[in-house]
Amino acid sequence: MKKDMRQVNLRVEDMPARWYNIIPDLPEPLPPPEGDMTAMGKGMIKECLDQEFSPDNWIDIPEELQETYRQIGRPRPVFRATNLEKRLDTPAELYYKAEGLFSPTGSHKINTALAQAYYARKQGLERLVTETGAGQWGTALSCAARITGLAATVYWVRAVHRWKEARRLFMELYGAEVFASPSENTETGRGLLKKDPDHPGSLAIAISEGLEDALSDDKAAYVLGSVLNHVLLHQTIIGLECKKQMEAIDRYPDVVVSCLGGGSNFGGIALPFLGDALKKGTRTRFIAAQTQAAPNLQGEYRYDNADYSGITPRLKMYTLGHQKDMPPVYGDGLRYHGCSPILRLLRNKGYIDTVAYPTDEKYVFESAKVFLSEEGFLPAPESAYSIAAAIDQADECRKSGEKKVILFNVSGHGFMDMEGYRQVLQV
Amino acid sequence: MKKDMRQVNLRVEDMPARWYNIIPDLPEPLPPPEGDMTAMGKGMIKECLDQEFSPDNWIDIPEELQETYRQIGRPRPVFRATNLEKRLDTPAELYYKAEGLFSPTGSHKINTALAQAYYARKQGLERLVTETGAGQWGTALSCAARITGLAATVYWVRAVHRWKEARRLFMELYGAEVFASPSENTETGRGLLKKDPDHPGSLAIAISEGLEDALSDDKAAYVLGSVLNHVLLHQTIIGLECKKQMEAIDRYPDVVVSCLGGGSNFGGIALPFLGDALKKGTRTRFIAAQTQAAPNLQGEYRYDNADYSGITPRLKMYTLGHQKDMPPVYGDGLRYHGCSPILRLLRNKGYIDTVAYPTDEKYVFESAKVFLSEEGFLPAPESAYSIAAAIDQADECRKSGEKKVILFNVSGHGFMDMEGYRQVLQV
Repeated sequence: MKKDMRQVNLRVEDMPARWYNIIPDLPEPLPPPEGDMTAMGKGMIKECLDQEFSPDNWIDIPEELQETYRQIGRPRPVFRATNLEKRLDTPAELYYKAEGLFSPTGSHKINTALAQAYYARKQGLERLVTETGAGQWGTALSCAARITGLAATVYWVRAVHRWKEARRLFMELYGAEVFASPSENTETGRGLLKKDPDHPGSLAIAISEGLEDALSDDKAAYVLGSVLNHVLLHQTIIGLECKKQMEAIDRYPDVVVSCLGGGSNFGGIALPFLGDALKKGTRTRFIAAQTQAAPNLQGEYRYDNADYSGITPRLKMYTLGHQKDMPPVYGDGLRYHGCSPILRLLRNKGYIDTVAYPTDEKYVFESAKVFLSEEGFLPAPESAYSIAAAIDQADECRKSGEKKVILFNVSGHGFMDMEGYRQVLQV
Repeated sequence: MKKDMRQVNLRVEDMPARWYNIIPDLPEPLPPPEGDMTAMGKGMIKECLDQEFSPDNWIDIPEELQETYRQIGRPRPVFRATNLEKRLDTPAELYYKAEGLFSPTGSHKINTALAQAYYARKQGLERLVTETGAGQWGTALSCAARITGLAATVYWVRAVHRWKEARRLFMELYGAEVFASPSENTETGRGLLKKDPDHPGSLAIAISEGLEDALSDDKAAYVLGSVLNHVLLHQTIIGLECKKQMEAIDRYPDVVVSCLGGGSNFGGIALPFLGDALKKGTRTRFIAAQTQAAPNLQGEYRYDNADYSGITPRLKMYTLGHQKDMPPVYGDGLRYHGCSPILRLLRNKGYIDTVAYPTDEKYVFESAKVFLSEEGFLPAPESAYSIAAAIDQADECRKSGEKKVILFNVSGHGFMDMEGYRQVLQV
């Protein structure tokens, strides 16, 4: 036991060597995808497609990939937010995973980007194509491709591409080719631009464009940064590290909180603990922090497409509709119409709660500022939602007097997102 | 011994608990400061003034401050740059300290900022005043003051303040008051603005303004982020961690490299190893990477002021002259006319080598891009100099066939410095 628990980290050699696959532990099988799998299957990395439907509970992280994880700073610390606890005058213990704060590209996305790049190179592919919303995933993929020796092409939601110039330069420094989406590069893009030359784009549209591009090149694969089972699988390293870290200080979370767009960072931290809830009956509460611009866990529970033009197979999910227009928010990574099939099933079975914050984002950015003022670290806009929900939980404990252990994920840093702070907080 | 040495980190509880004070080990006493110490002495934090001339070899880091160090992510990892070694085809082993990459404010400066804030609060002070060049020190001080419960005022070299708006917002989010220097807030500033309303400013001018401000307020102290002995003392935690980390993998550096402006990050990583050179006769080579805009270790060895208007006492240093005009560079943290008295003495005795890179900065930014491409992390412009010098050393080993162990410091990240990359590399 440490003198204090301000920071808990693992030894480098204690980084988890396997990912946790929750699929075999789910209360019922995942409803199979509907529709034509050909395009999606053809565009995807084979090993990832296998992992997508794997019946195995544990999947080894290849030794070379483990080395790359160590290269980019894994394992990452869990911090106890002692100052924040004092400020909130709460009896709760607040712990946060510094997942994105120490990430080379600014978020947790690098975990799956490196895994997918590793498998793509092993398969003899030469280029990875993807979409990005907030820009975090596009940067992670650009970095992973470069480190692994592959080319990268990124379709970036135009509404965001427009004002995040520094992040675009960042991707290009890694050698990636970056298009504002809708772009003139694909049929989907050209069609939308004809109707509206200033079309703001969306994640779903960018996915359609990326898929179209990848399918036209034998040496390219289309890769996704969220939603799919194998992406969440790769991200479980976050929660697996957290479990070891909480064990080291003799704690177990009563509440696990994270922001949720497609579900990759939420799944990353929550799935290992959700596995305990399913198998051991632990009573942890799981809270997904969302934006009212895209409260996809509060949508309809039905089959829908992951992309705008319907190239992808249909997945059973809570959805707002795959052609839904959603107002822009700075936490753009949360602005997605659907959500991971694994998480929507667990939501449907009552394992996951959800809260959605107003689209003016004042409350979440104010929460981020409180966190910054007490703990020193600058969170990404998406992570601000996670922090807001953790603070809400701590406030409830203040009222009820409960000494809950609250674990939340800070999935990204905000060094490249100052514009959001400026606009929303009017500093 | 680890399976690989991609990353070496200490356990949280193994973070050094004392700073190393090299003063008693120097080959001759430091020449005393010349001139009027009253203003400087009056404006400074008492404990820091004591540390400035301490005869003790080791100074305990107060337990509360150790906790704050852990809160902001210490200890920080040392990485082996295996990919970079391959790219350079060098037999040398390259290790880098991720000092700034994981820092909440983007650089090593937080180490002394937190220490000075701690001692200031203990003394009953309420406000810290300082200058900043690149903006790294100003941000660190703003963060440290906020976490510690003090107010902060920052005078920021106008030439930099102008284009680093995100960093200004960052300081203001921490609650700091930020002025472009020269400012209308002081006599020094008003005098210079009268002559040139668009005066670009300099570190020396900003120091003069900050001192003037602090001396007019009983509850304020003036704090410096470099040059002075106590600042380098606080930064020795970098090198002390590195020593333990290199020991853990059974290595000792043949070469220690870092960029040098006033000397705080260079001193931070080098002093513990320089102590070995002085006491045990180890033959490590120490290389200070500088800009030709301010090659202060190649200047004249004489008494000079630390600030522009001569409020500070005169220190014996290599200097370019305290009113020297220096061309702007993106690595603005290196653009300073003088250098730490400790380091200049060791330079004079032949312990420190120096290299200065051209002011167009093409070579150093290209070096940073190579590092980014291989290791994934984005360095600050100042750290790009450190990387360039480390790469030069690795190249020499390629030619000579020597398997040297090279340790370098990446003292800052570049997430808020994309403008420099864009302008210099024309991406």
